[in-house]
Amino acid sequence: MGRLSMIIVVFICSFSLLISVNASDGIRQLRFDKNKGEFKILQVADMHYANGKKTKCRDVLPKQVAHCSDLNTTYFIERMIQAEKPDLIVFTGDNIYGTDTTDPVASMNAAFAPAVSSNIPWAVVLGNHDQESTLSREGLMKHIVGMNHTLSQLNPFGVDVIDGFGNYNLEVHGTEGSSSGNKSILNLYFLDSGDYSTVPAIPGYGWIKPSQQFWFQQTSMKLQRKSKAPGLAYFHIPLPEYSSFDSSSYTGVELEPGNPPISSASVNSGFFTTLVGAGDVKAVFVGHDHLNDFCGELTGINLCYAGGFGYHAYGKAGWSRRSRVVVASLEKKSNGSWGAVEFIKTYKRLDDGNLTVIDDQVLWTKTPSMKW
Amino acid sequence: MGRLSMIIVVFICSFSLLISVNASDGIRQLRFDKNKGEFKILQVADMHYANGKKTKCRDVLPKQVAHCSDLNTTYFIERMIQAEKPDLIVFTGDNIYGTDTTDPVASMNAAFAPAVSSNIPWAVVLGNHDQESTLSREGLMKHIVGMNHTLSQLNPFGVDVIDGFGNYNLEVHGTEGSSSGNKSILNLYFLDSGDYSTVPAIPGYGWIKPSQQFWFQQTSMKLQRKSKAPGLAYFHIPLPEYSSFDSSSYTGVELEPGNPPISSASVNSGFFTTLVGAGDVKAVFVGHDHLNDFCGELTGINLCYAGGFGYHAYGKAGWSRRSRVVVASLEKKSNGSWGAVEFIKTYKRLDDGNLTVIDDQVLWTKTPSMKW
Repeated sequence: MGRLSMIIVVFICSFSLLISVNASDGIRQLRFDKNKGEFKILQVADMHYANGKKTKCRDVLPKQVAHCSDLNTTYFIERMIQAEKPDLIVFTGDNIYGTDTTDPVASMNAAFAPAVSSNIPWAVVLGNHDQESTLSREGLMKHIVGMNHTLSQLNPFGVDVIDGFGNYNLEVHGTEGSSSGNKSILNLYFLDSGDYSTVPAIPGYGWIKPSQQFWFQQTSMKLQRKSKAPGLAYFHIPLPEYSSFDSSSYTGVELEPGNPPISSASVNSGFFTTLVGAGDVKAVFVGHDHLNDFCGELTGINLCYAGGFGYHAYGKAGWSRRSRVVVASLEKKSNGSWGAVEFIKTYKRLDDGNLTVIDDQVLWTKTPSMKW
Repeated sequence: MGRLSMIIVVFICSFSLLISVNASDGIRQLRFDKNKGEFKILQVADMHYANGKKTKCRDVLPKQVAHCSDLNTTYFIERMIQAEKPDLIVFTGDNIYGTDTTDPVASMNAAFAPAVSSNIPWAVVLGNHDQESTLSREGLMKHIVGMNHTLSQLNPFGVDVIDGFGNYNLEVHGTEGSSSGNKSILNLYFLDSGDYSTVPAIPGYGWIKPSQQFWFQQTSMKLQRKSKAPGLAYFHIPLPEYSSFDSSSYTGVELEPGNPPISSASVNSGFFTTLVGAGDVKAVFVGHDHLNDFCGELTGINLCYAGGFGYHAYGKAGWSRRSRVVVASLEKKSNGSWGAVEFIKTYKRLDDGNLTVIDDQVLWTKTPSMKW
């Protein structure tokens, strides 16, 4: 064998090894659990983490004030991880509260510490408050993507032009060794919904831009060409269509005192239409409005809040901080093997003594007539 | 000189010649008139052309019925061209009425004939009825781009993925030989607003998709890097934001009997937000609703209808068919040369004996405080 051939063979072997390491790395490739046929996501919205023990809680009962700090947020995450053992933890923005943060890197490290030490994969999008310290949104995401066990990405590989930081997708493959073991049967999308409008004529919050929608639409189309998998989307700021419901048409509550009680951008940037057009996303999960925790269904898509999680975030004294869990379950075939996703359900847990489960509901079923 | 050098020189010379021919070709490069410092656009909305003399008029007075056909539409265009001598004619869709068309190529040839024979550059976007005969939207645009004197394009050069057919932009350069003679000082955008929704969950008309908005936003940004020129956008189906006005806030009328009287898509695809974000487009011109002919201003952008032009289109007996004219005027500097666009005005003409001018109004001025 000539020297050049040897170099080529060594190169091919190294490359194969690299692929094989990635494919077998449980952290890198999300997949359904082969015992239960489930994939579980824990959503943590609006931690508003600042400086740990020194940072006091907002809107808690008088008896809680003295001993309440960011550490209560940390302890709540740890308990949720312990109780749920999720396959993925998603932080949907306002992870740190920039204004009160002395050192944003230290705040992020502390905020995400329970996820890092759990060895569970975790993913982040940014809110509107994260960059209000000394780090830009790009700087924040660059730090996050370098942390242990995170699947967060700065932006999608191979896309030259995209607004924001932290737009990416993750594939959840079927159970190991199964026929769907090497393809996505649950598509997860993460988008940067921005912070504030930079257009002088438009006041208020940011929105998901055409570049991001185009990337989403193209990605969804490519994934659906391979497999008709359902999808879930996570970002921070609610879409204007979150205002389409009332108490008769949602599960949960809408306690935000604002008028309107939905703090979306002041303009409609069309992402809901793009989601409906793409067809795979069955539910959207945001944070931002800490006192709204509902899910409402519009044109086949569930629009869900998680409710506020963090103790340094505004809240309502006596109204528990909370977290949303999503579980996608596979169909069990007659031969005992796992099929496609059969249904997706969600519930919330309150930060009380029992981590009480509330508002358990099915968001989507593969067969529309499936009964519960 | 070596052979290779000679080939290179010949190549460079040929290339320069090619550029020079294109630049001096009045048909290919739109530019402001150097005598008046003006650029005038005639908009023809909803001709609904079918088979010429054999195709009867709709919604005309009883005394007009016997001698009224598509030829009345042709005659109206001819008179408008004669009266206005525009620098560009824009046909904003439903140019032919596919359902009643025996031969779509013959219908298009007849519909656009007055523009072709005028030697004036003309541009086309499609409506929702054009493809209702035997030619697809792609087929229609492919025929159109091959016709004489048209500046219509199938889709933008170098863009791999874009929804629809007939998305393109045209630059209007400054007067010949002036400092702005080789750059766009008025940006024109043409978009395919589609026909009908192809998404089962969304009924009704089509909309401008993320791929098109991304192209528009990128094109606008590139143009504005070179020059802060105002822009105008032409397409067929009104945006949902056309519903933002009442008679106290628009100029013209809203006589459509529908509820709502604005037949936009049933969803908001965000193009208005994208337009506001881009910043250069000062006015949008659509057709589609033949009995609406107003302009209303929202967040710095005028949303204008042209009013129905064609006699085989539905209309209102006794309410004249009409056409919209837009005139962009350059600032005259103290040394007598022309500067940037100083103001953009519009008016309509009715198809009566005098081609009566109505609703003359200023849409945009370079200096916001400029008085009229």
